[in-house]
Amino acid sequence: MHEFQIINKFFLQLSKKNKSSLNLNDDVFFDKSKKLVVSVDTYIEGIHFINFKKPDLVIKKIIRSSISDIICKGVKPKYYFISGSGDKRSFSSFNLKKISKSLKQEQNKYNIFLCGGDTVYSNKLSFTVTSIGFSQKIILRNNAKINDDIYVTGNLGDSFTGLNILKKKISTSSYLKKYFINKYYLPNLHLNLSNKLLTFAHSSIDISDGLFSDLEKLINKQKFSYKIYLDNVPISTNLKKLLIKKKLNKISFISQGDDYQILFTANSSKSRIINKISKSLGIKISKIGKICSNMQKSQIIDQKGNKIAIKTKGYFHRF
Amino acid sequence: MHEFQIINKFFLQLSKKNKSSLNLNDDVFFDKSKKLVVSVDTYIEGIHFINFKKPDLVIKKIIRSSISDIICKGVKPKYYFISGSGDKRSFSSFNLKKISKSLKQEQNKYNIFLCGGDTVYSNKLSFTVTSIGFSQKIILRNNAKINDDIYVTGNLGDSFTGLNILKKKISTSSYLKKYFINKYYLPNLHLNLSNKLLTFAHSSIDISDGLFSDLEKLINKQKFSYKIYLDNVPISTNLKKLLIKKKLNKISFISQGDDYQILFTANSSKSRIINKISKSLGIKISKIGKICSNMQKSQIIDQKGNKIAIKTKGYFHRF
Repeated sequence: MHEFQIINKFFLQLSKKNKSSLNLNDDVFFDKSKKLVVSVDTYIEGIHFINFKKPDLVIKKIIRSSISDIICKGVKPKYYFISGSGDKRSFSSFNLKKISKSLKQEQNKYNIFLCGGDTVYSNKLSFTVTSIGFSQKIILRNNAKINDDIYVTGNLGDSFTGLNILKKKISTSSYLKKYFINKYYLPNLHLNLSNKLLTFAHSSIDISDGLFSDLEKLINKQKFSYKIYLDNVPISTNLKKLLIKKKLNKISFISQGDDYQILFTANSSKSRIINKISKSLGIKISKIGKICSNMQKSQIIDQKGNKIAIKTKGYFHRF
Repeated sequence: MHEFQIINKFFLQLSKKNKSSLNLNDDVFFDKSKKLVVSVDTYIEGIHFINFKKPDLVIKKIIRSSISDIICKGVKPKYYFISGSGDKRSFSSFNLKKISKSLKQEQNKYNIFLCGGDTVYSNKLSFTVTSIGFSQKIILRNNAKINDDIYVTGNLGDSFTGLNILKKKISTSSYLKKYFINKYYLPNLHLNLSNKLLTFAHSSIDISDGLFSDLEKLINKQKFSYKIYLDNVPISTNLKKLLIKKKLNKISFISQGDDYQILFTANSSKSRIINKISKSLGIKISKIGKICSNMQKSQIIDQKGNKIAIKTKGYFHRF
């Protein structure tokens, strides 16, 4: 069963149905009356991070992944809790020191602080991170409007490339290796864009499972389709070069997730202000498509104007 | 390293040092300015629950264990998040149905609701529960006063007996088996006492690791000792009978934890009001000892007035 099916079938009935809280199908929980925004996520070795050879980088990745959920909703995270389960080797003094140092660096970078957690013994390494922020309002899923432009921040696909280099499925120069692996471990979150997003985005999500997969989630309860212009989907110069050299398809790299870029929709009238904010903050924001009615099917258009089909929409948590 | 040592050595520096938030050494995080109380705990098969043969009971146990942290601080929990990691068998449709039903029952019993979480694939079963409540103030650790009476709610030791029956280390009649196993899985939380506690308790903790272990935690930063009268430590009639029949020591049963009763201290002038509240709510509250200066060592006094030493203070999370 997909995660969505599990939630809908077994757990949706347990969430309170009132307007002050989001239902379980959003990335975060929002208690409007308390202005509280909460995100809870679990990260498991071998699934959400490849291994624990670099505890400093893994810790940064999971903290960023967790606060990304809050930032993409237009909210600044305030504090976090981390619960680690692992064996003596994972939580050796050497590693704990690295973990602590990494957390400190992330705290300074994103202005958050540790509030608690747990360390328990287990032969399987995993972390659960709870991140909390406060806001009068947040940007929802399922709130796109017809004819909205679809935007994405930064570049997609670098992280997936890094993962494949770590898995030794892609070989390249040591310079590019370092570049892509860095992108895998250290997604670049746009904390400064967060509050601005509230002023123009109709709906938003961070790309963790993949561009198309997360786009479907963004509009999952709306009777809409989307049109994405593949050429407009931003990738780095380094990835461009690699794709050409290795004769790889762009689409399979941009749809795999782990990017932690913000995908959002906005009215076409906001185009100018979005460009302006993009320039003033120095954050790349690309218009990649449009929200359409469900009179037509969702489409991905290549540079020649042809519609293309994709094999995989990205990663779904499946049981 | 003990959990305490890990926190102090590696993580304490990461928590914000201001009066509005508790430091990492308390059971809950409290943001006074936001009136927010948060508890995060991880539960692992084989450590925090014996196995997953009874998913309905395990789920109830971990939810109660989590909200117990908040209730013992004088606060009513409002909602919770649950993240489960496990394999297909643990999260089969059959089990998910049981889990969902159990959560529903706990929600009705404690007036809480589910706000989110996560299900991820892992070959090791674990759950992390985040519970949240709101309060102007909470009862702290390290706030006992000298000469405070020490109180405990309910009975101790039943849960540990249940665990030993499940482990087949104790055999008894099927009636008593059922009684003790029930106590292991379904600790009786005193939600109604919660708000009243704020009016008379100087400090409080729930007994998860064991009476003496948690008492030491309660006063860990204070230069105090304690005196506990073993005879006054409450146990059930069923446990009394079992101890006599099996010639077992009371002390080794009351000090093992998993009781989720509330241990608190209060000024001796509050004795009458505490008795009155105990009667009006129908909640057993026993005076078991006194907070003393550190001029003397902590003492446990048996029914003959002799001081006794204990071998184990309870369960410490050790790496």
